[in-house]
Amino acid sequence: MADALTYRAAGVDRAAAARALARAAAAIGSARTEAVVGGGGHFAGLYRLPDRARLLAASVDGVGTKTVLLAQAGRLDIAGRDAVVHGINDVAVLGATPLLALDYVAAGADVGEDAVAAVIAGAASACREESVALVGGETAQMPGVYHPGMLDVAACVIGVVEGGDPCDGSAIRPGDAVLGLASSGLHTNGFSLVRAVLARCGWTLDTVVADVGRPLGEVLLAPHRCYRRVLLALARAGVLRGAAHITGGGLPGNVIRILPPGCRARLIRGRWPVPPIYDVLARAGGVPSREMWATFNMGVGVCAVVPPERAGAALEICRDHQVPAWLVGEVAEGERGVEVV
Amino acid sequence: MADALTYRAAGVDRAAAARALARAAAAIGSARTEAVVGGGGHFAGLYRLPDRARLLAASVDGVGTKTVLLAQAGRLDIAGRDAVVHGINDVAVLGATPLLALDYVAAGADVGEDAVAAVIAGAASACREESVALVGGETAQMPGVYHPGMLDVAACVIGVVEGGDPCDGSAIRPGDAVLGLASSGLHTNGFSLVRAVLARCGWTLDTVVADVGRPLGEVLLAPHRCYRRVLLALARAGVLRGAAHITGGGLPGNVIRILPPGCRARLIRGRWPVPPIYDVLARAGGVPSREMWATFNMGVGVCAVVPPERAGAALEICRDHQVPAWLVGEVAEGERGVEVV
Repeated sequence: MADALTYRAAGVDRAAAARALARAAAAIGSARTEAVVGGGGHFAGLYRLPDRARLLAASVDGVGTKTVLLAQAGRLDIAGRDAVVHGINDVAVLGATPLLALDYVAAGADVGEDAVAAVIAGAASACREESVALVGGETAQMPGVYHPGMLDVAACVIGVVEGGDPCDGSAIRPGDAVLGLASSGLHTNGFSLVRAVLARCGWTLDTVVADVGRPLGEVLLAPHRCYRRVLLALARAGVLRGAAHITGGGLPGNVIRILPPGCRARLIRGRWPVPPIYDVLARAGGVPSREMWATFNMGVGVCAVVPPERAGAALEICRDHQVPAWLVGEVAEGERGVEVV
Repeated sequence: MADALTYRAAGVDRAAAARALARAAAAIGSARTEAVVGGGGHFAGLYRLPDRARLLAASVDGVGTKTVLLAQAGRLDIAGRDAVVHGINDVAVLGATPLLALDYVAAGADVGEDAVAAVIAGAASACREESVALVGGETAQMPGVYHPGMLDVAACVIGVVEGGDPCDGSAIRPGDAVLGLASSGLHTNGFSLVRAVLARCGWTLDTVVADVGRPLGEVLLAPHRCYRRVLLALARAGVLRGAAHITGGGLPGNVIRILPPGCRARLIRGRWPVPPIYDVLARAGGVPSREMWATFNMGVGVCAVVPPERAGAALEICRDHQVPAWLVGEVAEGERGVEVV
């Protein structure tokens, strides 16, 4: 079952997706080889190359239904960018250097070449900016599978763990500090819910909601923040015990992935500013608080666990990298889990 | 532009997809790094690891609309299997050993957990059989993007080139023999056309067409043949100068990818048995011969180019691996291209 956790499930019915993965767990486990490192639980798989000198980290991620709104806004470049950045973050939280990427674009027959070219251009820009090589990709037309005008964008990112062991959270211990690194927005999660709220309220991407003060499109469609540089800096400074990329499942669903047995993370509301868009979505959509926290990142895109005496230094490294960060909680002794209090 | 060729375009309007890639070529080229090897043209990208000792080959592929028929037949396990095998073949034709895979399943909200579990189980079986580690994956629910009941299945496969240079076709010279290795069926290409023919003729997967003699579903949905073992054996025997995985674009569109300048491949019809299904599809669908050859593999799943004096030995290796193979043509001096005569 542990192996199944390397699988990411995204979408509206995460429980059903999790059941599907649980049912496939035996099959997934049977397709391990001796070169696979660790028992899963991360969103990038770890693989030791035959000469045992190098450990690969590989991740595949999709952008989800954010593409629907990006297509409306004429910003499909962000879909390509987000797919690549998502994978880079998944690999970088393990202390690996992302090296190469491949992108995948599938679409209905009526999606034009402009759209596909925009997606790939966005993926290429993100690769260029992050020193990752875009080594290939696939574009597939699938009439009858996609709704008219719809497309799906995913990317695979592969990295290498430099020297020694991955940063997989196994070093985390009670007393450690949990830092929250700011997200740039919703990143790529919760967009089916967002679209339902927009439809319910009759809002468009141009609507300016008072509490937000900017057009919704600007806030909702902000590109996924890339944490490669800051994570690498934290790892090189020797302060990183574990890091979790906060994606589908929110803070509770993702921080738990890096906790060893006997460690309980306690995240304290009010320690960081939750951007107003989340309150707007919750109220407009009548979304219960529990669902909000299990769906959205609530302003935190990565949680980094560091020794308590290094929290100040770590926050300074984040500041140096222009990533707002806060001490959002701590690790306590207790049943493995996450509570938001 | 050469770099854009590493991209695969699949679907009904390949010209439009190619135009999209041409437009993205500058962006793709800008996202090269010094570690990328070769100028593209293969369906797996090549990347040299930082210590320069190892060359990675990475590929991403989707199953296309074969999933539509596989879902009807209750055989979505084949979708997972095909996605993985497709990637394994893409990597293996470069002389690389496929090592790890990740799968990607995206679906409408109404696709059940049985379906997703079946896809993953199929991917895991293929990995197990081919000694490839399934290190992760993503399952995404995307309501409003997919037609009801539809899903998309893709996989990324990563391999390593053992010792030295990849088998990229650069050693091919005039006079070389072109071997055709039998496909097991349509593999994963041409299914939008197939579905149009089925609809036009009122055929179902259970229909038995006289010239085929078996239910269409059995013939059309046969799993993609995996060529890993036979390709590795050919490479180890030192007879392989280049190999092309025959996917979208058929024999002419794929053999050209491995030809160096000044080399022209001539494939001679009648040298191998074209399975009857292709003639059935052509007649029933009124599909011109040129389109048939540019869409389907016509019975050949991989072309292997070998020195003429080693053709007999190479055919024997194929026989030893239970892969029917034929001497389907030769390489002549001339303008780089492929002709089917």
